[in-house]
Amino acid sequence: MIWKEEDNCLSAKCTFVDFITAFAFMTEVAIHAEKQNHHPNWSNVWNTVDIRLTTHDAGNKVTDKDRRLAETISTIYTKYT
Amino acid sequence: MIWKEEDNCLSAKCTFVDFITAFAFMTEVAIHAEKQNHHPNWSNVWNTVDIRLTTHDAGNKVTDKDRRLAETISTIYTKYT
Amino acid sequence: MIWKEEDNCLSAKCTFVDFITAFAFMTEVAIHAEKQNHHPNWSNVWNTVDIRLTTHDAGNKVTDKDRRLAETISTIYTKYT
Amino acid sequence: MIWKEEDNCLSAKCTFVDFITAFAFMTEVAIHAEKQNHHPNWSNVWNTVDIRLTTHDAGNKVTDKDRRLAETISTIYTKYT
Repeated sequence: MIWKEEDNCLSAKCTFVDFITAFAFMTEVAIHAEKQNHHPNWSNVWNTVDIRLTTHDAGNKVTDKDRRLAETISTIYTKYT
Repeated sequence: MIWKEEDNCLSAKCTFVDFITAFAFMTEVAIHAEKQNHHPNWSNVWNTVDIRLTTHDAGNKVTDKDRRLAETISTIYTKYT
Repeated sequence: MIWKEEDNCLSAKCTFVDFITAFAFMTEVAIHAEKQNHHPNWSNVWNTVDIRLTTHDAGNKVTDKDRRLAETISTIYTKYT
Repeated sequence: MIWKEEDNCLSAKCTFVDFITAFAFMTEVAIHAEKQNHHPNWSNVWNTVDIRLTTHDAGNKVTDKDRRLAETISTIYTKYT
């Protein structure tokens, strides 16, 4: 999973075999995000999920909170591909 | 829940008390969408969900598939507010 | 929502209008449970969810961890009924 | 994934690395079950999910509906292990 850092965001695109798989991935990410008390800006269209991470409380900059969540998401993603 | 039709999309914005509630709403919508074999373009940031419905197979126009899913989503949303 | 304490468990039964609603409720509970690092023993059949809470690490007794999760679940449940 | 047929049920036990993964699996199964309009009797304790399939409308016997859902669940399970 490749993360780009630009415009004060960490961003990545994920593709899955179908919508159901994409949503199961989102469910795992959702639970981890809530646990970390740090949530993604993300969008989904059928089998794709686009994720953007930034820290609102730090003035919309990339912080360690984003890097930690990105790492978690990368680990989850490897299970689905 | 107010749907706007413009740019060949039905769109709506939903707000919830927190992320967990927003994601539970998304889970219900996801199951209904898969059942209807028609999926939203949607994005989530913490307690907000933005939804755009259009029918790709009809050349990205608003069709009865979109109106049906919009109606389902409206019904679900009333439970969460 | 009525919780019974017996056999070293807090237990409750929940009923919903359909399976999808039951599963959305379960999704909210799942996220809160993971956040609290305390998980239910639960079963689901269509629109019903049976929940049993006990603290394994305390030798399967009812502890404050169970009472806290029960309170959270009760709060969630009121949204679905 | 090994299914046993006894007592007019198809049953299986699934184990995952943690609760979050178990719940993501359940989310996929839930969506497929709703699509097939046939739902499992299932229970979850942390990283385990026990599933029992029977057809209530056929007088609680194992039917092709159960075999179809079992096959779907087996396919999902292979992705998580």
